This record gives sequence, structure tokens and C-alpha cells, in this order.
Amino acid sequence: MAENNTIDLEMGAGGEKSNELISKIRKNFKVHGKWKNTADDGAVYDLGKEKLVFTTDAFIIDPLFFPGGDIGKIAICGTINDLAVMGAVPIGISLSLVIEEGFSQSNLEKIMQSINIISKITNVPIVTGDTKVTEKGKIDKIEITTSGIGIADKIIENGGARPGDIVISSGDLGEHAVALLATRFNYKTKIKSDCQPIIKEIQSIRNYLTSAKDPTRGGIAEVLNEIAEKSKIKIILEEKNLPFKKETVALSELLGIDKFAFPSEGRFVGTVPQKYAQKALKTLQKFNKEAKIIGRVERGKGLYLSTNLGSQKLIEMPRGKLIPRIC
Amino acid sequence: MAENNTIDLEMGAGGEKSNELISKIRKNFKVHGKWKNTADDGAVYDLGKEKLVFTTDAFIIDPLFFPGGDIGKIAICGTINDLAVMGAVPIGISLSLVIEEGFSQSNLEKIMQSINIISKITNVPIVTGDTKVTEKGKIDKIEITTSGIGIADKIIENGGARPGDIVISSGDLGEHAVALLATRFNYKTKIKSDCQPIIKEIQSIRNYLTSAKDPTRGGIAEVLNEIAEKSKIKIILEEKNLPFKKETVALSELLGIDKFAFPSEGRFVGTVPQKYAQKALKTLQKFNKEAKIIGRVERGKGLYLSTNLGSQKLIEMPRGKLIPRIC
Repeated sequence: MAENNTIDLEMGAGGEKSNELISKIRKNFKVHGKWKNTADDGAVYDLGKEKLVFTTDAFIIDPLFFPGGDIGKIAICGTINDLAVMGAVPIGISLSLVIEEGFSQSNLEKIMQSINIISKITNVPIVTGDTKVTEKGKIDKIEITTSGIGIADKIIENGGARPGDIVISSGDLGEHAVALLATRFNYKTKIKSDCQPIIKEIQSIRNYLTSAKDPTRGGIAEVLNEIAEKSKIKIILEEKNLPFKKETVALSELLGIDKFAFPSEGRFVGTVPQKYAQKALKTLQKFNKEAKIIGRVERGKGLYLSTNLGSQKLIEMPRGKLIPRIC
Repeated sequence: MAENNTIDLEMGAGGEKSNELISKIRKNFKVHGKWKNTADDGAVYDLGKEKLVFTTDAFIIDPLFFPGGDIGKIAICGTINDLAVMGAVPIGISLSLVIEEGFSQSNLEKIMQSINIISKITNVPIVTGDTKVTEKGKIDKIEITTSGIGIADKIIENGGARPGDIVISSGDLGEHAVALLATRFNYKTKIKSDCQPIIKEIQSIRNYLTSAKDPTRGGIAEVLNEIAEKSKIKIILEEKNLPFKKETVALSELLGIDKFAFPSEGRFVGTVPQKYAQKALKTLQKFNKEAKIIGRVERGKGLYLSTNLGSQKLIEMPRGKLIPRIC
């Protein structure tokens, strides 16, 4: 890194400049010890027959409370879902809090209660934690870092998609972005954040999935580009099957923010061999009737949209400061 | 928590009000899933013959760079040491960064490099991470949360001290506090932070230790009170064997801050049965010749100082906003 350079927001927004920053940070670390590197959202350890998966996520969002959730819900769901998309069943979450002096105790309790509700629903316990309080101005209200460990029989990797697979989405996408952007810009909508745990959904079709990822920062533009790159294949999405609600498309156009980069916090996209496509779809629709086959995998590279007019349009890895920090 | 109450600094400073806040936070969480609660610094899972330990720690300090270390070194050492005092050998660390827009890339690289050095020395790899960049003013420069997992044959618990044990310190105490306070208050000293990993030291006497703890926030006043309480015993420290350098005592008196509450970041205190006392001491002195027997365990309760005049003085659990955030 150059002497006079500073970190800018684009480096944290998901997309290309984020990946550059993360690569620079990673370059500092050689692999010491027994662990073998993994490129996805978590580290993997062999425990005899099973695998242990270990992951972490930091959350500093504005607003703290939004339609459909709050920073606590998003923090625990984010870490649970990172484990889930790798095929793991979470067995414990650590909760690290940095709280600004003067923060309301009742808001803190509300946040802890929403964490507890997700912990209860998923049967994933909060097993350890840390709490720091800082002087006014050292942090904006509250920052939460959740780490998680989980157990998997078999890891679902991002690099496993194969030509002939179909691309499936567990539901309508981008609604976390809609809920938060609407709150920020005082835009009226009935759409709530999709923030929720997705362990059961993934486990239900785990044996069919050749790749899976939760489209948080950078949306499907980022994660499907990542799957395409790691799997060395081409993904083609069908415009007529796009998993966006009308209101999501409208807000995207109004704000001039690409809907493909809209984060979701309770969805996943993945690839499944053609022969299991209908079975996987029907299984997912039991959880969410908006689950859809949204595209297919071919030989080649990159992420494309097959438009209603019959042309193919490249969907690039997101660039620039996409949207305000909402996940 | 009451409606109009807010979080204050004392609640994050270590000591009684911190413990109250942590209890309030903990109360929200019922134990869901298979994990069994543990009261020490990390969660413990059974893996057949071995135990898996999982812990987390958040770091937001000022100054970021200090004599003997920086926020990166303290973050990785803190989590390694939390695992180590429980008897575990760390097998992986997760690194979550929240960086303020405008932060210097070269400072970020320096911090990453000090993390890498400790990773290399200890053979503990950085296995996963997360990086968020926030708008100016949302965080003061950089916040780091490290989580860690480790493997132990046998857990060292805080509640294991027994009457007749001796109390041992792995070296002089409070030097992290001295280095940081001196930097903050422009006070000249040659003392550097004691920040370092202590895996080898603990492993070398692990079979003798009936309890162990690293005296970070709240210093030995906090951790020896905690051991006394959990073990339901009384600890008596000998004034003439106090493990503080003259300069540490002088700074403590100058600033009017109790030296017993001074944090260390590369030391541990523990209890050992009398019959292993000399063996444990000699082993620890191979790592640090300032290792000392500093007291003894008796029936009763509380932490006491046996003064040079022959009286016994209570050392209370720290109260109040002890010192600025330095660990």
C-alpha cells in the first residue's frame, strides 16, 4: 500500500475496490499452523468425519432499527447465513459489542432481544462475547461483530457450479436494501427487510447444491460474478424470471442504484444440476413461494442477463460506492 | 434495563459496573442448542477426547501505536491469551476490521504486519475475516474484533483454586497500562507494553495450574477477585512480593490510579498446589525471570494484601471509570 493513500468508502462497499482492499489485507498473512486456506466466507477444519467452519462479520449500520429488523437481527442472521451457505449447521455465535457512551439501555435491550429471538428460532446459542464502552464520538452508537462456528458433513463451495446447472434463488431479492433505503430517504413502502436465517432452506436442498452464496454486500451482481469466476463458468440470468418485486425495481430506478447490487439478508442463490432443478425448486417453495429458477450455467465466463428482447447484457462486478452502509 | 437509562463509561471499564452490564446483556440469552454454558472467557465444546474453545474480543484503543505494540498486536495477543489461559492451544483467529474513511493505508499495513508477526511466532493462522469501511466520524480510526478457536485436552477453570495453593505471576504486572498512560500523558518512561502471547508459558505449567487468568481490563484486582469468588476461597497477596516495577508504582501514585487495576496484555496469574510451587516457578522463570510467587490461597473469601507492617488490607473489585480505554 502506498504511503499517502487512504482508505475510502468505495473500498468497503462491496465490489471491485473492496476485493482489492481485502486482497491487500490478506497478502500480509501467510498460512501459519495446520489450517488449510479456504477462499469462501469461512475457514474450514477437518474434525475426522465432519468439518468445522469458522466465520466472522462486523456490523455498523444506519438506521439501527428498520422495517423487518435491527442491527442485532442482521448481525446474528449474517453470521448464521455465512455458515449456512457453506453447508454448515451453526453450533455457536460469539457476540462482540462496542457501545458509545450515552447509548440508550432500552435500545440495547431491544437489540439483544432480537438476537435472542433468532437464537431461539434457529436453536443456535450465543456462547461467548465481549462488551466495550467508548467515549462519545469514538463510535456511532453501536458496532456489533458476530463470529460463528458450525459443523458440516460436506462443504458447499463457490467454485462448484458446472455447465448445465440451473441457478436458483430462495426468494425475491434486494428487499433488505429497499427497506433500509426507504427509511433513509423517507420513501414510503410496505416492503420490509428480508433479514432472516436460512439454515433450513439450505439444508433442505444441500445435497443438490453445487454452489451457494448469500447475496449481501454487492447483491447478486457480486456473488454470481464470484461463483462464475471461481467455478470458471458463465451464468446467464433470464430477465423474465428476475426475482425482484415491482417496488424494488421502481426504487432502484428512482435512486439510480443498480438492483442487481441490492443486498438481501435472508436469501441465497445457488446452482443445482438440471436433473434436480424441479425437486430443489419445489422444496424451496415450501419455505418461500417466491423461490425461482432464475438462470442457467454454461461454458464460458462472466455474468449475463438474457433480456426479454433476446440480447445478452453483461452484469459487471459492482464498482464505486454503491449505496450507503446498510449491511 | 430502565427506559431512560444510558450506557456510561464505567460500565465498560472493567470492575463492578461492567459486570452488571454484562450480566444484563447475558440475561437476554437462554441456552439454545447443544452447547453447555461456561462462565470463563470462552465457550467450551466437547469433541470426543478434546475440547474446542471459542472466544472473542473487541479492541478500540487510543493511541493506536504505543511503545511495545499497536492495536493489531494487542488484538491478536488478547484473543490468543484468552484461549491460552483456558488451557487451549489456538488453531485459528478471525479478524474483523471496521475502518474509518480516510484512514492511512500505510498505518493499516503496519497494523496488519504486527498481527502477522504474532501469527508467525505463535504458529496461529488468521483464517477468516471481514472488512467494513465507514463514513468519517462513525468510528474513531479503526476498530478490530478478533475471535479465536483453540483445542484443549483439559480446561483450566477460574473456579479451581484450592486452600493451600500458591498464587503465581508470569512476570511483572501493569506495564501495558504504564506504556499507554505514559504516551497519553506525555510522561517519560522506558517501560514498554508487556503485550505478547503467553501460550508457551501456560502450556509449560498447565498440569499444575488449578486456575489461571490474564489480568487485562481491571488488572489483578479484578481477575484475582474473580478467581477468589468462583473458587470460593480467599487470596492473600504478599506486599513484599508485589510484581510491580518501581516506575509502575510511581506512575500509579502520580496519577492516583490503583496499580492493582493496571492492565497487562502479556501476563497471567494463576494458582498452583503448594507441592508444585517451586517447579512451576522455575519453569516460568525460563520465559521471564520476573515470574514470582505473589501470594497464597486460604479458606475464606475475598482478595487481600498482607502488608509489610503485618496487617491485611482488602483489595476490592475495581469500581468507577478506572483509566482511559487502553485495552
